[in-house]
Amino acid sequence: MSSYISDNACYSPLFADAEIEACFRCERLMALMLAFELELTRALVDHDVVETSAGEAALAAIEDFTPDAGMLGIGSLQDGLPVPAFVRSLKAHVASRSGEVAAAAVHVGATSQDLVDTVLVLNLRAASLCLSERLARVVEQLERLDDCFGAKNLMARTRMQAALPITVSDRLDSWVMPLRGHLSDLPSLRQRVEQIQFGGPVGTRNGLGDKGDAVASQLAAAFDLGNPQKAWHSMREAIVDYGDFLSKLTGSLGKMGMDICLMAQQGGGEIVLKGSGTSSAMPHKQNPVLAEMLVAFARFNGVQVSGLHHAMVHEQERSGMAWTLEWMILPLMVATAGKALLHADTLLAQVESIGDA
Amino acid sequence: MSSYISDNACYSPLFADAEIEACFRCERLMALMLAFELELTRALVDHDVVETSAGEAALAAIEDFTPDAGMLGIGSLQDGLPVPAFVRSLKAHVASRSGEVAAAAVHVGATSQDLVDTVLVLNLRAASLCLSERLARVVEQLERLDDCFGAKNLMARTRMQAALPITVSDRLDSWVMPLRGHLSDLPSLRQRVEQIQFGGPVGTRNGLGDKGDAVASQLAAAFDLGNPQKAWHSMREAIVDYGDFLSKLTGSLGKMGMDICLMAQQGGGEIVLKGSGTSSAMPHKQNPVLAEMLVAFARFNGVQVSGLHHAMVHEQERSGMAWTLEWMILPLMVATAGKALLHADTLLAQVESIGDA
Amino acid sequence: MSSYISDNACYSPLFADAEIEACFRCERLMALMLAFELELTRALVDHDVVETSAGEAALAAIEDFTPDAGMLGIGSLQDGLPVPAFVRSLKAHVASRSGEVAAAAVHVGATSQDLVDTVLVLNLRAASLCLSERLARVVEQLERLDDCFGAKNLMARTRMQAALPITVSDRLDSWVMPLRGHLSDLPSLRQRVEQIQFGGPVGTRNGLGDKGDAVASQLAAAFDLGNPQKAWHSMREAIVDYGDFLSKLTGSLGKMGMDICLMAQQGGGEIVLKGSGTSSAMPHKQNPVLAEMLVAFARFNGVQVSGLHHAMVHEQERSGMAWTLEWMILPLMVATAGKALLHADTLLAQVESIGDA
Amino acid sequence: MSSYISDNACYSPLFADAEIEACFRCERLMALMLAFELELTRALVDHDVVETSAGEAALAAIEDFTPDAGMLGIGSLQDGLPVPAFVRSLKAHVASRSGEVAAAAVHVGATSQDLVDTVLVLNLRAASLCLSERLARVVEQLERLDDCFGAKNLMARTRMQAALPITVSDRLDSWVMPLRGHLSDLPSLRQRVEQIQFGGPVGTRNGLGDKGDAVASQLAAAFDLGNPQKAWHSMREAIVDYGDFLSKLTGSLGKMGMDICLMAQQGGGEIVLKGSGTSSAMPHKQNPVLAEMLVAFARFNGVQVSGLHHAMVHEQERSGMAWTLEWMILPLMVATAGKALLHADTLLAQVESIGDA
Repeated sequence: MSSYISDNACYSPLFADAEIEACFRCERLMALMLAFELELTRALVDHDVVETSAGEAALAAIEDFTPDAGMLGIGSLQDGLPVPAFVRSLKAHVASRSGEVAAAAVHVGATSQDLVDTVLVLNLRAASLCLSERLARVVEQLERLDDCFGAKNLMARTRMQAALPITVSDRLDSWVMPLRGHLSDLPSLRQRVEQIQFGGPVGTRNGLGDKGDAVASQLAAAFDLGNPQKAWHSMREAIVDYGDFLSKLTGSLGKMGMDICLMAQQGGGEIVLKGSGTSSAMPHKQNPVLAEMLVAFARFNGVQVSGLHHAMVHEQERSGMAWTLEWMILPLMVATAGKALLHADTLLAQVESIGDA
Repeated sequence: MSSYISDNACYSPLFADAEIEACFRCERLMALMLAFELELTRALVDHDVVETSAGEAALAAIEDFTPDAGMLGIGSLQDGLPVPAFVRSLKAHVASRSGEVAAAAVHVGATSQDLVDTVLVLNLRAASLCLSERLARVVEQLERLDDCFGAKNLMARTRMQAALPITVSDRLDSWVMPLRGHLSDLPSLRQRVEQIQFGGPVGTRNGLGDKGDAVASQLAAAFDLGNPQKAWHSMREAIVDYGDFLSKLTGSLGKMGMDICLMAQQGGGEIVLKGSGTSSAMPHKQNPVLAEMLVAFARFNGVQVSGLHHAMVHEQERSGMAWTLEWMILPLMVATAGKALLHADTLLAQVESIGDA
Repeated sequence: MSSYISDNACYSPLFADAEIEACFRCERLMALMLAFELELTRALVDHDVVETSAGEAALAAIEDFTPDAGMLGIGSLQDGLPVPAFVRSLKAHVASRSGEVAAAAVHVGATSQDLVDTVLVLNLRAASLCLSERLARVVEQLERLDDCFGAKNLMARTRMQAALPITVSDRLDSWVMPLRGHLSDLPSLRQRVEQIQFGGPVGTRNGLGDKGDAVASQLAAAFDLGNPQKAWHSMREAIVDYGDFLSKLTGSLGKMGMDICLMAQQGGGEIVLKGSGTSSAMPHKQNPVLAEMLVAFARFNGVQVSGLHHAMVHEQERSGMAWTLEWMILPLMVATAGKALLHADTLLAQVESIGDA
Repeated sequence: MSSYISDNACYSPLFADAEIEACFRCERLMALMLAFELELTRALVDHDVVETSAGEAALAAIEDFTPDAGMLGIGSLQDGLPVPAFVRSLKAHVASRSGEVAAAAVHVGATSQDLVDTVLVLNLRAASLCLSERLARVVEQLERLDDCFGAKNLMARTRMQAALPITVSDRLDSWVMPLRGHLSDLPSLRQRVEQIQFGGPVGTRNGLGDKGDAVASQLAAAFDLGNPQKAWHSMREAIVDYGDFLSKLTGSLGKMGMDICLMAQQGGGEIVLKGSGTSSAMPHKQNPVLAEMLVAFARFNGVQVSGLHHAMVHEQERSGMAWTLEWMILPLMVATAGKALLHADTLLAQVESIGDA
């Protein structure tokens, strides 16, 4: 979501999502990059890639390091990402504290992308936990509405025309079943996404001789991530899958939002919402604001998803262009899905009745 | 793909795909709609929804019916789809051949969408079989190239810059692994997609009293389709999944195409293609035409996929707007994926060498 | 539009547009490529780039040539476009009829892209004339409706809620004013688009020494096109402008379609349409089919437009990837806009009343 | 741009743009909403819609008002936008300071959308001034490079293959000409965009009897904006035009970025950049980071532009869904264009040579 909306205090309650934002925050990024280097050096020691004494000295110094976000930002402008500056400053710190031999035990066999992508999937894990919980709550709300109003009648409408009577349950089913599907899809999606990135400069794990896979495996275990057969530097399907999931989630909520907007039109009385929005000029109006938001958010993610598919055209062993495009789009989509779930939750709690009076 | 390109004889070999086109052809549509009505009436008889004699008479007449495509087209302009005209003419035919009682045994409990969506998934099944076979062939080609050239050296390139040497196998892995993934994803995707659509006018299967599910079940079995818990008239996730799959498929091929374009730049000699394209003005050039096509096709599907996500905002029990948008986009994406696989197959067969001389 | 819909006789009246299709047809393409070569050779003669006798012999032979579409199609598969095969066969024909010297007077200073892009803008001119006429008709229809019903009352609706009464004129204004704007934008858009493409192999017009601009100028005059300062091989803004125009046109019609769908909901009686669509299962329904189509078409073009913007990333002097993407998308958008105007025209003719009874 | 990137200190120098952000900031929004109400009340007085004494009292109180951003944010969540809460609190302030009669002279004849859209176009004006200045600087840089290196040779490349030699000027022309075009398009675009929004609750200016147009005209003059024939509440073409402009701008810069990435590949030496990006693992690399950014930014806006076209399907007199979608997308696009221009400027300053050594 646009910082120009989500950071604008006049709009942020409508667009910002503190919990999701926290998943992508600078402090978390720096902490996870540091954790990556720590676990990597530990694995290097454990697999005799670096000498124990040098490794232990490095570990002590890494634990002691505080990165400088501003300096990493300047590094990003130079290098396209903060990792080279981070590694330079970390190594300098380790060298000054524990000597050059210790510094040489840092970042061995790794590359910038290993850190950025591993942090990304850890961030997505945090987001997934949050989305999953919210999604379950929305499903529960719909089940509660079904308990209360499911047996009531409602006019089915096809092609924008009254068709035949159905029950409220029938309509609610078309809202809740896709959401249940998304909830049950999430574990296997998470498994595809939550994979360590560890490939080294050109994705081959060659920098560590025959120890590459073993180090990757230990690193994966340390973060409770999967260890893929090969680094996925230039194979971005799981990221696309995650984006598709997010857009399907907002798409399903958008269908519900559109239905609610249509049900809330005057004269129908098919749905009664308490606390709807007001107008600056027409006090009699009760605008179904959150339902509208669900449609807007669905269209927003429906637009964004295209960008992730374009980012699959990831040339050679690492594409600055395609990768950057991912960064620009994926967090926007996560935040949009997260906020859509919050709005859906609030909106469903506003429902005072559905169906015939 | 645009009829203005794929139907233009000067361009069609580059864009048209006869086998995929056959999946969506008018004759097939009419035959499958007829088969749907036949199996439906049979199920109605078997479950005592209609009397045996009336049903048998209807079945005989249905088998004898030849729809008039032109008239169905006129019906589409009127009704937004060909089914109402099809059903009207089928019922008139049954009535005139076997009487009104027989005609009343036709289309009972069904609605237009039941036919259109069932035909769609049967068409997608045909397309899936074709795509699957082609995809397997492309994977095999890549495995063959790996056998021939895998051990050779290649300069890895990250962020468009020479990085460190890798093997040709390393590069080929980044092409073939996603394709293998798509191939192995297809069966479970097909299962989600290949579901009977049977819900009746408003999606409830109510028109048949308590026989709705049983009739749906028999109908599903007749077409070897799954029988979902509920009609999916307004729940389009599986269609979106299929579109996502198609775009991921072309995206993976587009990555390969982009790599090949870059490898084929003069001076590199990283790949040698026989039979590349010529220029009308510069006979010395050898353009990597099919590799370029793979990138164009990836971007095309990367654009289209957005439309299917928008079509999830499917209001109420049936959305003429969202559903039509699906029809306009999904076959284009299938055809683009199909042709991309054919081009990939041809392109890989043109490879005379990869990697260091 | 998908050949799989527009070529399917069961659907084509809803999607196909014979007049627009004719703008992009194979025969027209071949005729225009031939006309290009004819006018080019004529200009070469007039500017003493080739000797008069050789030029005249070539002209006679060119006029006598019939290209073989099938062979050009095979050439496209090889070369990525039909021009190299076209030029080879034309030169062979000229050589066999008038000798090698005459053949050497053909295609001098030109490149494939010169022909393809010049044909494209000539096709877009034909499409523009058609769109302009249809658009004027839709505007007139809206003015007629305003004359008939403009003074009647209508409930304004904001955020999907009844607001305050307005007149039918107020609503019609919001439909017609953007369409009038599009109509008045078209001439200057056409001027930007309708520019000769003539740059030679690498876009510099250098192949003709200092005669390049003069030949380009004569060629432009022959086709009543503008002559840009420089060949626009890799500068595609005007094409993007045209796509933007098409999508804005369908967007404006989509707004009108959405309004009509909402006005046609039962109970409102805000609009009465004669001859609306029927249902296969619910004879009482009157579906606002053409209004739904306008929304679907707006979304379709709203999706496609993205692809043309991506095609601006047109690398170096000619991008096979970006250019092909244009070909795949632009004619689809033209056809969608053309058909949307036809549907709008029909739909507005169906209006029996708007506003309070 | 995503707050999750542009607000993350580790990334913000690569993505954030303080000057553009300032155009959309909360304080500016509140100041402009207040200025709108001030000028409106002044116009109401000048046109005798409200009594002078009441109006003067209101004006004094308005000038004295400080809105509470947090409270407006809460209002947004309730109402879908901050204006109703703003107007309520402003009126309460005026009432408490100058009495109810004065409060009744506030916001007369206006609606929320009048404020939000007027502020938007004032924000876009600020952005346009900034973009225009940056664009002129980029054009100048390219002209400077042309002066330095224009006469040198460069291999033209078509379809990713070496074609024939051109001059550096030829290549630079293909970069600068579209940018010059964008610069010269901006004034007329600004004129279409910079129009007062003043329509009242349902867009008719009726609330002020026959004074609506006169008040609108004075209001427009006060902000140096145009006064359209009619409120453009539901006619969003100018907004789409602005988005199209932004995406064409980044598209043109993306073409330049892609060219530079390709020229910077090793072995070519076609371009030499000082201060390129480094790698955490491969110190020998010089990554063309800012050129990659230009491509990523072009694709980002090429994706977003679709959303603005969808937002044209703006139902009835005001669409919460479509309008919100605009807010989510347009500022992202402005910021992306702004930052792309900054990166282009820096990148071109890094060029040490282009063309043959």
